[in-house]
Amino acid sequence: MKKIINQVSEIVPEMVQGIVQASNGLLRQLPDTQVVIRNDEQFQTKIQVGLVSGGGSGHEPLHAGFVGEGMLTAAVCGEIFTSPTPDQILAAIKEADQGQGVLLIVKNYSGDVMNFDMAKEMAQADNIKVESIIVDDDISIPDSQQGRRGVAGTVLVEKILGAAARQGCTLEQLQQLGQQVIDNTKTLGIALQAATVPAVGHPGFELANDEIEYGVGIHNERGYSTEKLQSAQKLAQELLTKILAEFDANKNDEFAVLVNGMGATPLMEQYIFLNNVLEELQKQGIKVTFTKVGNLVTSIDMSGLSLTLVKLDNGWQDYLTQNVTTLGW
Amino acid sequence: MKKIINQVSEIVPEMVQGIVQASNGLLRQLPDTQVVIRNDEQFQTKIQVGLVSGGGSGHEPLHAGFVGEGMLTAAVCGEIFTSPTPDQILAAIKEADQGQGVLLIVKNYSGDVMNFDMAKEMAQADNIKVESIIVDDDISIPDSQQGRRGVAGTVLVEKILGAAARQGCTLEQLQQLGQQVIDNTKTLGIALQAATVPAVGHPGFELANDEIEYGVGIHNERGYSTEKLQSAQKLAQELLTKILAEFDANKNDEFAVLVNGMGATPLMEQYIFLNNVLEELQKQGIKVTFTKVGNLVTSIDMSGLSLTLVKLDNGWQDYLTQNVTTLGW
Repeated sequence: MKKIINQVSEIVPEMVQGIVQASNGLLRQLPDTQVVIRNDEQFQTKIQVGLVSGGGSGHEPLHAGFVGEGMLTAAVCGEIFTSPTPDQILAAIKEADQGQGVLLIVKNYSGDVMNFDMAKEMAQADNIKVESIIVDDDISIPDSQQGRRGVAGTVLVEKILGAAARQGCTLEQLQQLGQQVIDNTKTLGIALQAATVPAVGHPGFELANDEIEYGVGIHNERGYSTEKLQSAQKLAQELLTKILAEFDANKNDEFAVLVNGMGATPLMEQYIFLNNVLEELQKQGIKVTFTKVGNLVTSIDMSGLSLTLVKLDNGWQDYLTQNVTTLGW
Repeated sequence: MKKIINQVSEIVPEMVQGIVQASNGLLRQLPDTQVVIRNDEQFQTKIQVGLVSGGGSGHEPLHAGFVGEGMLTAAVCGEIFTSPTPDQILAAIKEADQGQGVLLIVKNYSGDVMNFDMAKEMAQADNIKVESIIVDDDISIPDSQQGRRGVAGTVLVEKILGAAARQGCTLEQLQQLGQQVIDNTKTLGIALQAATVPAVGHPGFELANDEIEYGVGIHNERGYSTEKLQSAQKLAQELLTKILAEFDANKNDEFAVLVNGMGATPLMEQYIFLNNVLEELQKQGIKVTFTKVGNLVTSIDMSGLSLTLVKLDNGWQDYLTQNVTTLGW
């Protein structure tokens, strides 16, 4: 394993310190936690509903890189691929609450759902208004107990809700909007090489030099098929066919497209892939009004990418386009 | 070679199309070129000196990802690791000129310097005011003929000049400021794995499983030493010692720090490394007033990172901090 680290046990705390220091004062860390929270002037002066997300680390910039004006209020950084504990989530909720309540954005994994639920109950017992939404955008293989996994679409949920919260939506409105976005967000990913979890020291699964894995998760979960590597165009067609089958789309619908790098795949390949995706959508007469490309929801050093489509409702394109002040968007 | 591409010969044109489409209308491509230029409303209405950069592709988001309000006016995308041709650079200059002249920001490689010089002469013959500056921030091994190479510091030069140009500086002022920034910008990089140029199909050089290369360039140029992989802390100390030796720093100086990922190194490792760099600088009593972390000047899929320090002069920190509207900053 070749990584630029110190002790494996210190990866998350050192990373969180690095994130905060890279923010030039826009973020701060809650003492004795791995919680990153807004520290900008607007946060001090402008009241809104708090948005808290989090989960296992290893997906950077998600979630801490999306804390800032116009997106999340706070992020809770668990150990690598491991849910944060309820006490840390509770600390984030308490600090994010400005009296308007807090919405939790949770990716659909059993540990995350359980721990965020416990924190929600603890906060409610403290008379803080808290609601939660569960992101489950991965249309690949469902977890046998938990259902569909939450993957790259999460960042678009965070972006849309961040803009809506800044605009003054209530907790109830945000919860409803969030569920609508989730219902209209579908993702599928591929890997050319699995991620190496530092504590493990080797890739999570092996692929031959000419093989790719279709339908991977962001924690080295294998997908629906291992096949020979194909051209970017063929990959785009494969992923799009499966994703579009999830929507009842008609000619007037508008979509957002996210091409998300898994960590070790250069932007060059992501842009080429986007080009093929848009070409194919145009052929099919499907209208795209927002696109985004980059390493946003990664899986440590996995090589690969995912494709997310969101069927847009009124105002969402504007929410996606508005400027934010974060490290990662 | 495992890459998400179509034909090797089509990588750059397909990527450039993807970049433009990912911009949601903020960028456009000049017809029959690989030139990307601003297309935002401010560019239509607000006159300033044009800033044009470019060079071989494979360093994304540099340069096209830094075209936009507050940074570059246009970028010329050459073939992979290959200088763009003078006619393409000339096309960019002509379109970027709003009557106030154009400054060329050129990385110090013989092909780039030659072709940008030819384009400058052609533009001057057309009565366009054009000046150029040569970025040579890499303190590792000099090219035998050309001197020091231009690497990650280039993006900070582009950021500072972009803010200054937006603020209304003249061509002469920008040329002078650019040279001052270059004189105070020093970079050193390391690689854990070399990049695979698509037309070649294998990494540019081999490193054993426990080896790193100190002082690499961004085109698979080897550095000053091949050694055993060390902790992030030791790596930070090694790079900082060499970089700080380049400055006549005293206690009142303020520095900007850039940790730049080479393409395949996760943000997690970059943040940990930043943390060690800042710890070490603090120990030495050196004041840091701006930090930036991310994959900004990459080398395709190289694994590794570089460290850049800029000794800041009056106003530079503010220029670095100001918001921009680009794909990559």
